[in-house]
Amino acid sequence: MKWIRYELKGKVGYGLVEGEKVAEYEGVPYGEHKKTGNHVRMADVKLLYPLVPPTFYAAGLNYITHRKKMAERTGKPLELPSQQDIGYRANNALISPGESIVVPRDSAGKLQYEGELVVIIGKKVKHVSEADALSCVFGYTIGNDVSERIWQRGDRTFWRGKNADTFKPMGPYIETDIGDLNDLMTTVRLNGKEVSRFRTNDMLFGVEETIATITRYNTLYPGDMIWMGTDEPTLDMVAGDVVEVEISKLGVLKSPVVAET
Amino acid sequence: MKWIRYELKGKVGYGLVEGEKVAEYEGVPYGEHKKTGNHVRMADVKLLYPLVPPTFYAAGLNYITHRKKMAERTGKPLELPSQQDIGYRANNALISPGESIVVPRDSAGKLQYEGELVVIIGKKVKHVSEADALSCVFGYTIGNDVSERIWQRGDRTFWRGKNADTFKPMGPYIETDIGDLNDLMTTVRLNGKEVSRFRTNDMLFGVEETIATITRYNTLYPGDMIWMGTDEPTLDMVAGDVVEVEISKLGVLKSPVVAET
Repeated sequence: MKWIRYELKGKVGYGLVEGEKVAEYEGVPYGEHKKTGNHVRMADVKLLYPLVPPTFYAAGLNYITHRKKMAERTGKPLELPSQQDIGYRANNALISPGESIVVPRDSAGKLQYEGELVVIIGKKVKHVSEADALSCVFGYTIGNDVSERIWQRGDRTFWRGKNADTFKPMGPYIETDIGDLNDLMTTVRLNGKEVSRFRTNDMLFGVEETIATITRYNTLYPGDMIWMGTDEPTLDMVAGDVVEVEISKLGVLKSPVVAET
Repeated sequence: MKWIRYELKGKVGYGLVEGEKVAEYEGVPYGEHKKTGNHVRMADVKLLYPLVPPTFYAAGLNYITHRKKMAERTGKPLELPSQQDIGYRANNALISPGESIVVPRDSAGKLQYEGELVVIIGKKVKHVSEADALSCVFGYTIGNDVSERIWQRGDRTFWRGKNADTFKPMGPYIETDIGDLNDLMTTVRLNGKEVSRFRTNDMLFGVEETIATITRYNTLYPGDMIWMGTDEPTLDMVAGDVVEVEISKLGVLKSPVVAET
């Protein structure tokens, strides 16, 4: 099932995609909800990023290729982590499919994309095992973890380098029936040209392990989400570019890049 | 005015404190709200942490004494930052006044308190000047930025060291009439004994500058909050201890410490 969050005539709501139509719902898909019986046309709605999470988790440096290339670039030896570190991203940065990534005024002008699988939690869990971890997953969508690398390197935290307004495009929908994670491919295109292609599930710490790790310390709640990291390469984007992230079964997340006025 | 968020007979709502009574409201204090006309007794309600923020900001290492003592402890020279770095904390960690800070099972068993001023945003702002910054502040409350120092030092991010469940006690109420920030004192007591006392506004980067800095990159929204950092000393707490953070005009935030069972 494909859930979308959308705006129509100033009203924001959730719906289930049924071909060219959307069945309207009250409530949230990962919580209490009820079919209203109304339908709207897919062509009429503005798609919104599919949820506003209570907590927005991100798994950093979670792919082997990404780490290998970083080691080559910095000349430092390749060190694979023995434990997973989790970070946070911020809701102010979320934007909807088709909306523009804005290069902040005092940035040097280059941003980089990171095409990522987003895991959306559907149940409250603590101390969940790896074997049971997927039982708390509601569905999946696509995220683009846009990064200003100069700030990311120079600042003590990732706040503006990863979380300036518009740096987190997400969508277009939540897919609840993903099938086998191993079958998914992530593709990134910059101005229509493929710049990155990797098996979505080639993670150092997979979805199950990540959920088990987080819930050793933190309760996960319905609507929380985890961005799973990206594989290389990540190239520069400047104002005027258009970036697309595609993941099998999850559609395409497309974002133009513009300069702040 | 003192706003509280409270639970009474399974219902959660906001109210204005009027002596021993609470005037019941619908909506949120920093957004649309309406007096219902009902009153409840202060003695009957369970106080909750006063809001669930869309984004939870934290200003790290924001006091000079804190930095001096850290330099002495580590033997490194005292370096004052030329720019402010902002971090994030996570909503899963929030707990209410009187609720227990839980030492996680696989922690070595010692946590530290950090008594902090919490700034609550009341208006949507971007690119606000220092001179205008306080116009977007709705009010203030107290936060205890509990930290597991071994994880904080050893992990690449602060996620479990700062954000394990129960690590962010907050409250007891939001005060909208703080008067002059310079008049406030922060006091921390451990098991009834004063362990820390500092002028709340002796910050390296004050409230106005912090808001101006954040809004150069990030839009602040009503209900967002900024934890302003702490001054030294911060001592170990173990299961069985009771910690209290007091800030003039903002009351006392009291939390027992217990071990995870």
